[in-house]
Amino acid sequence: MDDGQAFARVAAARVGRLATVTRDGMPHVVPCCFVVVGDVVASAVDDVKPKSTAALRRLDNLRANPRAALLVDHYDDDWTTLWWVRADGVARVLGDGSEREQLLDALASKYTQYAERRPPGPVIALDVARWTAWP
Amino acid sequence: MDDGQAFARVAAARVGRLATVTRDGMPHVVPCCFVVVGDVVASAVDDVKPKSTAALRRLDNLRANPRAALLVDHYDDDWTTLWWVRADGVARVLGDGSEREQLLDALASKYTQYAERRPPGPVIALDVARWTAWP
Repeated sequence: MDDGQAFARVAAARVGRLATVTRDGMPHVVPCCFVVVGDVVASAVDDVKPKSTAALRRLDNLRANPRAALLVDHYDDDWTTLWWVRADGVARVLGDGSEREQLLDALASKYTQYAERRPPGPVIALDVARWTAWP
Repeated sequence: MDDGQAFARVAAARVGRLATVTRDGMPHVVPCCFVVVGDVVASAVDDVKPKSTAALRRLDNLRANPRAALLVDHYDDDWTTLWWVRADGVARVLGDGSEREQLLDALASKYTQYAERRPPGPVIALDVARWTAWP
């Protein structure tokens, strides 16, 4: 697919899968809502209550190793229609500040749930170094 | 969700996302078809032609660091219906042998494409050490 088609597909996707690496070198992957703003892929941590171990794990991983990948894909039993796009880069965890607010605005424009209730936690800003698309 | 529900959801899923770690510690994630056989999650490498860098990368990663995670999830704009199940473990790359044949049989039972054309390449057998389900 060409760059324009890859961008359109990623922009339209409602969910991606964010991969990080744990402190001890294990792969970690969770689904997440996201928005693309230029060459940044932003996702919010919905809940950082002590019991939300998945959210905390993701942030802990990024503090130890900031490299991350977000995968967007389409599956259908007709395998001629399959595609995926992956963004690889380095992530920053934004606890406050104007960039966090701008990315939250973009997330709220895409997801009504975020407009109704602004996520109180950190925003993960993935600075994309490389986009890879298949086929 | 309880274990039975998690198992049923994973067994019914047509696609998962496989996360590995590259030799230099970067997360890598690709969509893949899979089947669960006991505590093994099996996926085939569809194509190992020289140009299929995605397949080769996955195998190269596992040779350097065999730890892998397979994520199965459900997304809907109604966030009350979201769920995911993740299998974390250690993967073996099976180039031949009876276990590879058995896992290919299971893959062929689930996906007609594999029954029509048996994948010629290696099979990734992820020995699951831990299942994690949310919510």
